[in-house]
Amino acid sequence: MLWDYQQPVAIRFGNGRVREIKDVAASMGLTEGGLLVSEHLFAQNGTAEKIVKDSEGAISEIFSDFSPNPDVTEVDKAAALIREKHLKFVVAMGGGSAMDLAKSAASIALTNDSIAEYHGTGKAMPQEHLPIIAVPTTAGTGSEVTCVSVLTNRALGKKAPIVSDGFFPSVAIIDPELTYSVPPHVTASTGMDVLSQAIEGYWSKGHQPICDACAIHAAPLVFKYLPIAVAEPNNAEARQKMCEASVIAGLAFTLPKTTSSHACSFPLTNIHGIPHGEACGLTLDWFARINKNAQHGRVQEFARAIGFEDVDAMADAIHELKVKVGLRTGLKDLNLNAEQIADLVRISRHPNLYNNPVEITDEMLQDMYEHLAATD
Amino acid sequence: MLWDYQQPVAIRFGNGRVREIKDVAASMGLTEGGLLVSEHLFAQNGTAEKIVKDSEGAISEIFSDFSPNPDVTEVDKAAALIREKHLKFVVAMGGGSAMDLAKSAASIALTNDSIAEYHGTGKAMPQEHLPIIAVPTTAGTGSEVTCVSVLTNRALGKKAPIVSDGFFPSVAIIDPELTYSVPPHVTASTGMDVLSQAIEGYWSKGHQPICDACAIHAAPLVFKYLPIAVAEPNNAEARQKMCEASVIAGLAFTLPKTTSSHACSFPLTNIHGIPHGEACGLTLDWFARINKNAQHGRVQEFARAIGFEDVDAMADAIHELKVKVGLRTGLKDLNLNAEQIADLVRISRHPNLYNNPVEITDEMLQDMYEHLAATD
Repeated sequence: MLWDYQQPVAIRFGNGRVREIKDVAASMGLTEGGLLVSEHLFAQNGTAEKIVKDSEGAISEIFSDFSPNPDVTEVDKAAALIREKHLKFVVAMGGGSAMDLAKSAASIALTNDSIAEYHGTGKAMPQEHLPIIAVPTTAGTGSEVTCVSVLTNRALGKKAPIVSDGFFPSVAIIDPELTYSVPPHVTASTGMDVLSQAIEGYWSKGHQPICDACAIHAAPLVFKYLPIAVAEPNNAEARQKMCEASVIAGLAFTLPKTTSSHACSFPLTNIHGIPHGEACGLTLDWFARINKNAQHGRVQEFARAIGFEDVDAMADAIHELKVKVGLRTGLKDLNLNAEQIADLVRISRHPNLYNNPVEITDEMLQDMYEHLAATD
Repeated sequence: MLWDYQQPVAIRFGNGRVREIKDVAASMGLTEGGLLVSEHLFAQNGTAEKIVKDSEGAISEIFSDFSPNPDVTEVDKAAALIREKHLKFVVAMGGGSAMDLAKSAASIALTNDSIAEYHGTGKAMPQEHLPIIAVPTTAGTGSEVTCVSVLTNRALGKKAPIVSDGFFPSVAIIDPELTYSVPPHVTASTGMDVLSQAIEGYWSKGHQPICDACAIHAAPLVFKYLPIAVAEPNNAEARQKMCEASVIAGLAFTLPKTTSSHACSFPLTNIHGIPHGEACGLTLDWFARINKNAQHGRVQEFARAIGFEDVDAMADAIHELKVKVGLRTGLKDLNLNAEQIADLVRISRHPNLYNNPVEITDEMLQDMYEHLAATD
């Protein structure tokens, strides 16, 4: 078996550690010229300004003029600001969107190009980039330890990831207290993304042992702590454990890549507006049952390693978890017609589908979506 | 809970991958000026020359003029060669000694200092260093993923580690085929070091979740595959799994640090000549029983996670493993007198002892060594 591993992101984890941004920057020789990329919410509620103030001059600008699925034009705007103000590093604070935007802006700012030239075109990103400090505010995307930036080009109707080694943040600061304000449904959905990343990273054709170990660590934390984090948003232990699960699931999937549930999530999100993690979770138990005897028993070993009798029991527990945290278990309310189901089948044929350990045919997808369409 | 994680070493794992040295160097922009630091054995048996030839000009010099516990004067010699020939990167191939020497030489070569100035003096190593490609030939030290270089100053009678972020190799190439020629007793001892690193990394006061996950992955591989690797040196699966266990145990202990068994191993090795891993294993089951109820049940959880009923069952299995692979379970053959036992107790009070989750008193050490002195 051949495998590669790379994880250049240094992690600082713990309550209150968002206050270390200044020290982290200083340890990289950066005492001024910081750009805070921060979602609207944090600009509005004063958090962004507090971060700037606490940085004692290290951060001088805030950019929050971007949408939840950041557009290439928004990346170009952030890059223009970096060039104009001769900024030297980027702090990305938020969910996936802030990080997606910051990663691309920190690289493209050192060129005179538009990020659009690199978006879905296959053109390799330049290797030079400004250093990035990532500060996630949800327990979900794992983006703080990955080298992926997902962007949208609304003018061309295109959504695609850009991958570059230059996108790895230098440091991820994970402060569970930042997640206390995440509302229950977002907590539930992002938490289900964590579980999907861990399980799919494990059974991906690209699986490898260090990521296996991370997946086995992360998954049981979600089963145990997600219902608590949803029911009690200020439960310190549950928030901390979900943040731990999130960053370690990030390590678990970033090299092996995700598989079938992520592939199917894209049309469910893009066409039907189902939040990403909820969309992943919708099919996770279905694919677990399909994959259960794949890879000479590896998937069964995973289920047992995380405390279940077998994969069927784990799939049952995934279903129960969705019910418990208020995520959908079916699509009946959408009243999908045959054409809409056919679209879901067709658009689920995303590259990630081919990482699934069992070959997924159109008939299997049709069967699954028909079942979901008839289920509450 | 606060924790930090850093793992900047990229890993390439798999049979035959030693042939990728040239590609790895090229990916770092290095096509000439390589120094191969290689133990005598590989210089003698033609392996080192083959590596140089396969590098097609990337490696131009070999340094193998050093002893199993490399001396500071030997580091200075390697550094002088680097300066004289204007070399640009270092490939460290061998067990721990080659890596210990290469790490220090790759840093000190960029100064006009002797490494002795930094050895046990507390003076911080300069951050600049030549890039290092580490190629371990034993499944044991984990040095390919750590930032530690253990050196000896024979003139001063001093053995001590130097720690520097600059010591992290850029890339570790782990080729299990390189370990086929390791003789059974060395396989057994280095393999027991792997188990000690995993278990001690887990229960260390400095434990943290990513390292926990790695420890839980690595330890069961040793129980399963070490006896096979010792009995059948050419068993491809056993050698591969032991190499996997070794590098992942390296990740498991390098941040949390080792504890009591490593602390006690130092006098056992330095005074009585017991190989490092064998010396660690000698006390591992003893300390497992002492630590079994520490950390609110975490050690019991570890034992269960790796398939044992409890820590006592794991300790029994450690003892059985030692018997099976021909490692010592006692010190009776040494006919230790009271003074020698007192020396062992005294010198075991190494800083690592304070990482142990249970406070270890001199009485506990006395009790343990007396028991070992009376045991075959």
